[in-house]
Amino acid sequence: MDNPILVEVTRGQLVESWHRGSVAVVDAEGSTVLTLGDVERPVFPRSAVKALQALPLVESGIADKYGLTDEEIALACASHSGEPAHVAAAASMLAKAGQGEPCLECGVHWPLGEAAARALAAQGGQPTQLHNNCSGKHAGFICLACGMGDDPKGYVKAQHPVQQAVRSALEDLTGASHTEDVSGIDGCSIPTYAIPLPALAFGFAKFGAGVGIAPGCKSAAERIRKAVARHPFMVAGTGRFDTRLMEVMGERAFVKAGAEGVYCAAFPELGYGISLKVDDGAGRAAEAMMASLVLRFLKLDDTERATVEALAQPVLKNWNGIEVGRIRVTRDLIA
Amino acid sequence: MDNPILVEVTRGQLVESWHRGSVAVVDAEGSTVLTLGDVERPVFPRSAVKALQALPLVESGIADKYGLTDEEIALACASHSGEPAHVAAAASMLAKAGQGEPCLECGVHWPLGEAAARALAAQGGQPTQLHNNCSGKHAGFICLACGMGDDPKGYVKAQHPVQQAVRSALEDLTGASHTEDVSGIDGCSIPTYAIPLPALAFGFAKFGAGVGIAPGCKSAAERIRKAVARHPFMVAGTGRFDTRLMEVMGERAFVKAGAEGVYCAAFPELGYGISLKVDDGAGRAAEAMMASLVLRFLKLDDTERATVEALAQPVLKNWNGIEVGRIRVTRDLIA
Repeated sequence: MDNPILVEVTRGQLVESWHRGSVAVVDAEGSTVLTLGDVERPVFPRSAVKALQALPLVESGIADKYGLTDEEIALACASHSGEPAHVAAAASMLAKAGQGEPCLECGVHWPLGEAAARALAAQGGQPTQLHNNCSGKHAGFICLACGMGDDPKGYVKAQHPVQQAVRSALEDLTGASHTEDVSGIDGCSIPTYAIPLPALAFGFAKFGAGVGIAPGCKSAAERIRKAVARHPFMVAGTGRFDTRLMEVMGERAFVKAGAEGVYCAAFPELGYGISLKVDDGAGRAAEAMMASLVLRFLKLDDTERATVEALAQPVLKNWNGIEVGRIRVTRDLIA
Repeated sequence: MDNPILVEVTRGQLVESWHRGSVAVVDAEGSTVLTLGDVERPVFPRSAVKALQALPLVESGIADKYGLTDEEIALACASHSGEPAHVAAAASMLAKAGQGEPCLECGVHWPLGEAAARALAAQGGQPTQLHNNCSGKHAGFICLACGMGDDPKGYVKAQHPVQQAVRSALEDLTGASHTEDVSGIDGCSIPTYAIPLPALAFGFAKFGAGVGIAPGCKSAAERIRKAVARHPFMVAGTGRFDTRLMEVMGERAFVKAGAEGVYCAAFPELGYGISLKVDDGAGRAAEAMMASLVLRFLKLDDTERATVEALAQPVLKNWNGIEVGRIRVTRDLIA
């Protein structure tokens, strides 16, 4: 089945590029609200499930044992830009578990945020694993290992107790089996498991609504959602989509991007969970789609609407600031 | 018409993302060698036609009048990484025409090359228009204006004598009308005109084979092709596809990327011109497609083959250097 064209990129009067994709919206009872395209094909959720991966840390009481702040819990769900506040929070999480940067197994890269990378270079600095966009998630994994009394070494491996706990949380919420045959290695070296979009959306519906899950999981999910809503800067960074959207939407829309054009979201007031994948992996299309789904399902006030519409239909400007085109979603998404 | 899937991106045992596109291969007599997908749809060639846009500069004798070197002529065809050699050559071209950086109208951006951007930041520097990836093309335009006795001011506008000369060269080579209704504004503010892929490929076939064009145009095309083959670093930069490919292929394959997943090429020994467009604009797919067309049409020695195969099927590694997947072209392209 060919997925529909959901996003167009224009230049002048013409469509220059276009993106196909698939979408699932499911409520907390598991009923389908909307599907577009082939939603049975398994999708690697990548970083879009970081909030679910953080559940064992909070539900176990280990986040409290180490006194993790809301900022730090938000960072555990982040694909951050490597700005100083992100780096400091990751270091603080590790210190609370009695560990340091060498304990991380996510690898080193320059900050995702280009301005942050150049600022680091301008100071004569070099990136460490703390600058890796996944360092908060990994610091959370190390806290979880230490809190459970396990050696954190090898915490990225599928058989380590940390990944077993994370996999179990994901299976509980989504109802999908996370088996070896659908596994891949993520950018930060942990396992990622491909599952169909409706299962992913169902997991986020339960995460958002607190329905169909154990009381401990429900309160952990609520704590994570509130932490992110209070500190949307910590989950992404300056100018980033997730940060901008949640700065205006607060707890009304939990959204999280994953690599290769994946997005997951929860709209708690409706009990909806959302997952989407752009066939070609383009983040620009996934963002426009996610914003358009916020517009479609949630009643927005004028402030919210102005921000979300700008995210749903960005104007493309060139290096001289001249408007050259737009990104726009197609009728299938607006319906 | 749905374009075929031409590139797949794998993770673990699964295909994570995929790219559709269209391809045209035409010989210098205008006969079709190969088409894939909908090739009648007009495509903005963007930076893929910079070598054709440089023809008036060379054919007019103005490149010689100002004593432009081969490196500088190659830079006039470049989407460069903003490394010091690129910046110096752009400045030199302007100086030869008695002009300087403020005369450029391409806008400012940090070097495309991330290492070059960080090196500039580490020196406490800020980018200028010379760092814009199009600065060589623009410096060439300013040389052309000055050499023709025109005021370079406004040289990016469609009605300026420079853009008239450039448009005329493109129309002559491709046989396609470059009219207002198919025009857009490029990233560097000059007009770009959408035309069908076969016309674009035909233009590159003539550019490569020197057939069906005036003697002056033929020798200008040869001069440009030789300059680029001698200095492939100048057209892109460290680690970039065009540089790596032409470092091994020399004059056997002239290739040039454009934004939004466009590639153009000439294989002079076969008289073939090639153009391709990835529907979604992904450069990673366009590169794999271009390399696979080199493998398909040209007889390669072992050194050439090793490089081109690595470009056609790149291994994807994560931040820890672990192989997580591959990019591969589909059977339609290999056939």
